[in-house]
This record gives sequence, C-alpha cells and structure tokens, in this order.
Amino acid sequence: MTVISKDALEYFFLSVFKAEGFTDEESSEIADVLLTADLFGIESHGAQRLMYYHGNIGSGSVHVGSKPEIIQETPVSALVDGHFGMGQNVSVFGMRLAVKKAKANGIGMVSVRNSSHFGIAGYYTKMALDAGLAAFSMTNTGKIMVPTFGREMMLGTNPIAFAMPADPYPFWFDASTTVVTLGKVELYTKLGKTLPTGWAIRPDGEPQTDARDVNASVLSGEMGGLLPLGGTGELTSGHKGYGLGIMVEALTGILSGGLISPEMNGAHGDHTSHFFMAFDPSMFGNPETIRNRMSQYLQMLRDSEKLPGQSRIYTPGEKAWEHLRQCEQNGICLDDATWAEMNRIACELGIEPPKGLH
Amino acid sequence: MTVISKDALEYFFLSVFKAEGFTDEESSEIADVLLTADLFGIESHGAQRLMYYHGNIGSGSVHVGSKPEIIQETPVSALVDGHFGMGQNVSVFGMRLAVKKAKANGIGMVSVRNSSHFGIAGYYTKMALDAGLAAFSMTNTGKIMVPTFGREMMLGTNPIAFAMPADPYPFWFDASTTVVTLGKVELYTKLGKTLPTGWAIRPDGEPQTDARDVNASVLSGEMGGLLPLGGTGELTSGHKGYGLGIMVEALTGILSGGLISPEMNGAHGDHTSHFFMAFDPSMFGNPETIRNRMSQYLQMLRDSEKLPGQSRIYTPGEKAWEHLRQCEQNGICLDDATWAEMNRIACELGIEPPKGLH
Repeated sequence: MTVISKDALEYFFLSVFKAEGFTDEESSEIADVLLTADLFGIESHGAQRLMYYHGNIGSGSVHVGSKPEIIQETPVSALVDGHFGMGQNVSVFGMRLAVKKAKANGIGMVSVRNSSHFGIAGYYTKMALDAGLAAFSMTNTGKIMVPTFGREMMLGTNPIAFAMPADPYPFWFDASTTVVTLGKVELYTKLGKTLPTGWAIRPDGEPQTDARDVNASVLSGEMGGLLPLGGTGELTSGHKGYGLGIMVEALTGILSGGLISPEMNGAHGDHTSHFFMAFDPSMFGNPETIRNRMSQYLQMLRDSEKLPGQSRIYTPGEKAWEHLRQCEQNGICLDDATWAEMNRIACELGIEPPKGLH
Repeated sequence: MTVISKDALEYFFLSVFKAEGFTDEESSEIADVLLTADLFGIESHGAQRLMYYHGNIGSGSVHVGSKPEIIQETPVSALVDGHFGMGQNVSVFGMRLAVKKAKANGIGMVSVRNSSHFGIAGYYTKMALDAGLAAFSMTNTGKIMVPTFGREMMLGTNPIAFAMPADPYPFWFDASTTVVTLGKVELYTKLGKTLPTGWAIRPDGEPQTDARDVNASVLSGEMGGLLPLGGTGELTSGHKGYGLGIMVEALTGILSGGLISPEMNGAHGDHTSHFFMAFDPSMFGNPETIRNRMSQYLQMLRDSEKLPGQSRIYTPGEKAWEHLRQCEQNGICLDDATWAEMNRIACELGIEPPKGLH
C-alpha cells in the first residue's frame, strides 16, 4: 500500500486530465468526483478507475472537447445531451442546473443522455446537499443484471442515490439495484475469494461462486450475470431489485431518449444516461425543523437495540464521512496495483508521477 | 371460496363506507382503492382489509368527516394535512393535486401528514398514469423493519411505488422495502407454513421461521421483526433495503412534519405520512416516443432468455393487469375468512350482506 495526501492525489488527478486535453475547469470537476470517491472509502470509483477513463479517452469513446447542451427546458426541468463528454463534466452541469432550478422554483429535474461513466452517483446528491437541498441521482450502466427468472443480462447496476440534509452528517444513500456491484466482484477476484451464493448466476442459472468467471462472462456478454437486490427468484424478493433496476432504466435511458443498458458496449457502459433531481425542503416547512427531525431520527436508528455481537448500527453516509475525516488526517491508502497504474498513466502522458507520503 | 362480481363487490364497499358515515364521493374513492387491490390480485389490501378499517373508524383513530387541508403550496408542490381522515380520501386528494400541478407546470410534489393507512401505494401512481403522467407514491407505516445489525423495529414496510406509461400495460412497480410485507407473513400463518429464513428475526437475532410468532411479536412491539430487502447483515446487501426504508421515512414522516414509523401505534401504523410526485414525460421529449421506447424495453425484458424450467419473465404490473382481465370476466375470489368478516361488518352496520355469484 502507498499513502498519499489528499492534496497530492488531487494534484495528480488534475495533471492527468489536463494532459488528456480537458480544460482546467473540466479537470478540476473530474478530479473532485474521483477524489471524493477515495475520501469516502469507495475505492472502486476513485484512483482505481483512472485506467478505465484513460482507455475510454484514448479509444475515442469519450469525446474530449465536447460540451453538454440543453435540448429543452422548463422552469423546473431540462433535457441535456452530453455529446459523449466525460460523465463527470456532463453530470456536474446537469446537477448544477437542477440545483439552480430548485433554488429558484423549488424543484429541478434533469434528464441526461449521451453521457459516459459518471463515477459515484452520490457525488451529485452531495452537490445538492451543499446547497441545502435534498436530491436524487441515478444512472444506467452497461448490462450486467439478469431479470427475475432470466439468465440474460438486460439491466445495468443502475444505482439510486438519495440525500437529505442532517447533522452531524447527512443522510447519504448510494446503492446499486444489483445485489452487489462489479467492483465488489473484482475485489473478490483480487483476493482470490469465493463469492457467496446469491450474488451471481452461471449461464445455466446455477449459483456462480467463481469471481474470476463472473468477471470474464460479464465482459464477454455471455449468459448469466449479477442478480438483482433480493437475489434469485421471488422468495427473497429479487423481483423488487429487478423492478427498481427497470425504474432507473426508465428514468435515465428511456426518459432522456438515450441508450438503455442492453444497447451499450462493455460492462460499465459507454454512453450512459442519468437522472438528477434536487428539491427544496422549505416547500414543506421550516428547513431547519425538517433537518433537525431528520438528524434526530438518524440518531434514534444508531441508538436502537443491536444484534448480539454487534456494537454499532450505521446510517447511510456515516461510514463515508468517517472515512473522509480519517483520510484528511492520515492520507489515502492506495493498493499496489492502483499505484502502478497511476505511474503508468503518468509515464504515458509525460507528467510527474504521483507523490506518496510513505 | 366465494366468487363475487366486480360490480357487486364495489356496491358492497360503497354501502359499508356510506354506513360508516362517509359522503358518497368519499365512499366511492375508498371503494375504488379497495376494489383495485382485489382486481390486481393484491388480496391483502382489498376486502381483507375491511375489518381493519372498520376497527380504526370505530376506535376513532380515523376521523370520519374531517377534510384534507393544504397547509402551504407552490406551483409545483403542496404540503397537505390529512387531519386523520381515511388514507384513501387524503391520498386521492394528494395525488389529484400532484397531477393537476404536473399538468400545469410539469411536476407536482405533494407531502402529506396526519393521514392513515392508504391501501396500495400503486393505486395513486395509477391515477397519474390515467392522466398520461409518470409518478411516485410512498408511505411510511407502523414499525416493523429492523435496521441492519439491529433487533428493534425502527422502520415501516415503507413501500415505493413508481409507474410510467407503456403498452399493452404500464410499468407499474409497487414494493415494500422490507423483504416481505406483514400480509405475506399473515398468509403463511393462515396456511400453517414455515417461513423461509431471511424474512424475519427473533428477539435474539436468530432467524424466525414461525409465522405465528412473527405476527405476535410485531403486534406486541417486542424485539425482532421483518428484515429489510436484501436480508440480514451486509453480505447480501440488507443495508440497501434498510437505506431505501429510511429514504421513504425521510420523504414521508420527516418532510411532511408528520409521525415517523417508531412513533406510531400498531403494525400498520395509525397516522401515516405519504409522498406523491407526478411528472410529465413531455418535459423531456415527445411523450409518444418515450412511451413506445418504454413499451419496447419491457417487451425486450419479457422476451429475454429464461432460466431453465421458467417459461416467463414478467415485468412489474403485468401480473396485476392479467389478474384484472381475469376478474372482469370471472369475478373475484374471496376466501372464507374474508367473506365471514364482510358479513359480520354488514350485520354490525345494518346493511345488505355481500352478494356472491357462487
């Protein structure tokens, strides 16, 4: 492992994207999304995703220099075409617009097409939180989820993020509608661990417990894939995760006129669509009162009776904010594979390699 | 089993609520929500819930004669106080307002407090569908879900309903954020069946497989309860169902200034809060094009490769619309316990008993 300071990692991200051809402002937006993922402990979406973006920029799947465009709008909505720019730039544009409309008219709902992988869905709800608003953020991705009773990948991981202001940290929920993400499977592959049953199925529908095989079959588009949240069949309500996955597809690829998951190339999806909605809680009462009640309820949850052997009950966002505090003090730990990838990218782009603390 | 025609069941529901003291219009609204549940095959929320409503009206928990009131509003939002009226009347008022605002300004978001059990969440999204709109509907309920790593019930079943226009039937999703509803446990109790592990936990955190004991412990408010969608712990992502449950609580009890699940009496919850949002897809493009793409995607899902031994892949809403068609032809089947309850209510209210076909 290598430890790097927050500032040094941010500086490295900035250097990479400037060298890739993005403007200072664009590079700064992309860097902040990646940095936030690492600070929040969502390693799969931070420095570890650099090589993936580097590849997409190199292949021309991401169009450097393109700008998002508003196709149609109302005082509370907008349809945005990302023109295949970096998902982070397109999405910061989209959520900024949603926040602006919510500040002016109470709600901003923005549908985005022709974007690309946007990083963590929760980055964009955090933008709304910073403006005192509640928000949703969703995206479709490349196909990876099988329908209930199916064995063909027809939906993406299709995450739902929702956030609402609270103290000492917000309610910040960000979860795929598959039982796990591909990032989790990749982690098990790295560690050489067997997958629990209930995460994935093989082409014949039997439980797939070999992480390496899931990765391979997903990438090659074979039968089998990840299961929806709730697992296989209907007994433990896999049809609910499947339904939530379709909901996300409806609000992203369908509503925006973009691509749906089975139309995209690759497991992460090349040309994804997003949905952003921000709204002002003050439409429903005193925002401080609402914020205080939310904080109290989250505290009630944390204080409620634990299972034997458990010392804590978490609320969504708590682990991320704790990780953030720890990283701000001690720096960010990056694994050797990621560190090697960062050095390789630096070499290829002819920029300074990242500077670790130890 | 007794079979009753759609018209005869509707007539009976109407008679009951008129006799309970509701106006013709109110009775007709309540009757339609209950009838739709039975027609859609969601037996737990149709005639089977009559005795529960009868009890709540009798006890004064539901205030006959009260009218919902708009507390504050904007062109795209409203806060409604239900003044403890029947959840169906309060909610029809709420979603009607959301639809009106969405028709005029693109989006209508309505937060409702001091309501009561509103029946199936999906009834209200169907109201929006009938107006050509997409919609969300959510409610909190009495406490029944334990948090991840917890053993104390702190959240309701907290369903999320979402609908989007499509043909030959809409995308109509309506699911609790618990792995199953109490209705499902009640069904297992009736059938004397053992619960699968992963549905509920005992006070000591061990799997609870005795349906009767779940029912009893939920009603008495003991430790243990239903698990969130995704099951126990984090391995199969129970924390996602738990997070979705808090999201619903935030959008209902917190946002509206109403009660949250642990503050309510009874498993179903006496004084629930709701969230309704309708929006016009035409803000994002030609609504016919969006509707056609949604229909095509749903058909792609149904046509995708099945698991061995499975002949169909369903899309959410398909089973409900098929059940509706079948009931319109053949009538509605009600079990003996429900039929007996209906006759008892008729006797107590001094109205004609329900008339079965056979």
